[in-house]
Amino acid sequence: MKLVRFGDLGQEKPGLVDADGTIRDLSGIVDDIAGDVLTPAGLQRLRDIDPASLPAVGGNPRLGAPVGQVRKFFGIGLNYRDHAEETGLPIPEVPIVFVKATSCISGPNDAILAPADFKRMDYEVELGFVIGSPAKRVSVEDALDHVAGYCIGNDVSERSLQKGGPGEWVKAKSYDTFGPLGPWLVTADEIPDPQGLSLTTDLNGERMQTGNTSTMIFPVAELVSYISKYMTLLPGDVVVTGTPPGVGMARNPRVFLKPGDELVLRISGLGEQRTTIVAES
Amino acid sequence: MKLVRFGDLGQEKPGLVDADGTIRDLSGIVDDIAGDVLTPAGLQRLRDIDPASLPAVGGNPRLGAPVGQVRKFFGIGLNYRDHAEETGLPIPEVPIVFVKATSCISGPNDAILAPADFKRMDYEVELGFVIGSPAKRVSVEDALDHVAGYCIGNDVSERSLQKGGPGEWVKAKSYDTFGPLGPWLVTADEIPDPQGLSLTTDLNGERMQTGNTSTMIFPVAELVSYISKYMTLLPGDVVVTGTPPGVGMARNPRVFLKPGDELVLRISGLGEQRTTIVAES
Repeated sequence: MKLVRFGDLGQEKPGLVDADGTIRDLSGIVDDIAGDVLTPAGLQRLRDIDPASLPAVGGNPRLGAPVGQVRKFFGIGLNYRDHAEETGLPIPEVPIVFVKATSCISGPNDAILAPADFKRMDYEVELGFVIGSPAKRVSVEDALDHVAGYCIGNDVSERSLQKGGPGEWVKAKSYDTFGPLGPWLVTADEIPDPQGLSLTTDLNGERMQTGNTSTMIFPVAELVSYISKYMTLLPGDVVVTGTPPGVGMARNPRVFLKPGDELVLRISGLGEQRTTIVAES
Repeated sequence: MKLVRFGDLGQEKPGLVDADGTIRDLSGIVDDIAGDVLTPAGLQRLRDIDPASLPAVGGNPRLGAPVGQVRKFFGIGLNYRDHAEETGLPIPEVPIVFVKATSCISGPNDAILAPADFKRMDYEVELGFVIGSPAKRVSVEDALDHVAGYCIGNDVSERSLQKGGPGEWVKAKSYDTFGPLGPWLVTADEIPDPQGLSLTTDLNGERMQTGNTSTMIFPVAELVSYISKYMTLLPGDVVVTGTPPGVGMARNPRVFLKPGDELVLRISGLGEQRTTIVAES
């Protein structure tokens, strides 16, 4: 299934995208794409519904992030071998786990705000995964059973604040709108191998990032297992899993985002995000 | 007002503590002590109620954390001049902002779990504050208007994981039960000066920490203003503001928590937490 949340910011309704690409309204069935709805039983309940029996959503509504009420939002640093190499930093021996504030989550096509004092904003296309059942000290073998699905994430970052090792990356990674997710949450049954997905970023029509999740240092299953040693992952928790090569900071010359820039992020099977950078008023 | 959440874990009801110390049930008025209930209008609505008109809660119910549905949970590192000195680390020039996962929040008297592989667990009594209205780039002068109230927090930490600068402190600070909050959320009108509160920690009856919020390097108003430059703080967000001297790691010889230990944390006006360390089964 492709699950979505549609409508105005903060008022999003749950929906699913049917085989014809039409959004079907799930708000008569569930309150939100969140929490218990993401558990195996919750998703099975949705799978058992004939999409044609749900109201079709007309027009072209705004999409919100495809998961609501997110309690934890993590990023993973330097998780692609080829990206770690371009930054000149050593290959991590364990996952670098940092936090993005949940208040930065926005829709896949919402504007990304550029505050006047942020001069080194950068894009990072990333495979995001969403937890579907509580995961505490789970093995790598069992880890993917705890994943509800996948989505595109853009780990927008202000590089001038991302200093001194992973410490305090939360300040560099959490400005409002710095966490676009979506368009869809594609349930895990439709992504049998999360380690074979291509990712791209285009900036103003030029290809900037090209990668494949096959070059991840710590694949999704290892990330779930690793983080679950240190805390319980809960349904609706989101992890964006690191970015492939081509970020603006690592280019020569460097490229930073500026108002008016247009970004298109794509991951195979997960759709695309189209966002514009807008000066914060 | 002293606001509480009482009942079984995950099933807590909202309440307030009346002048006689009796818990009065607010569940007929509000769903939770969370979100909009914490705004100035939401708190005024509760203040306008005669506590005697609310059902008295009998028995001795478990208390949960006094705020629910927390979206962001921050800690501040090395924020007491006298604690920074005992650690031998330099006085920070800006607040060290780190994250505790919201899944670690527990009640003020709940057991703190000691996993078998955590050998250097430490206590940190801290003044916690809870945001009451959205704060984005607010001035220091206006900052306290955005605080709904205060509570005791214990920033339980596994020191063996707290390495390499503030980076990845989230792993050291987020194990389930590592974030006891409460007993009460004392509304800000009853704490006119958050920078004049005494804090203590007793371990097995021995005084370990003694401090006063007057020695904070970055007082509450500066913390609200500072964090709000980097993201919007929302009602229900919680910040624990750093610990005074006397943590186990800085003692000679070092003292780490072990199963069976009893901790009592107190802050003037905010009550006390009594917790036991329990081996995780």
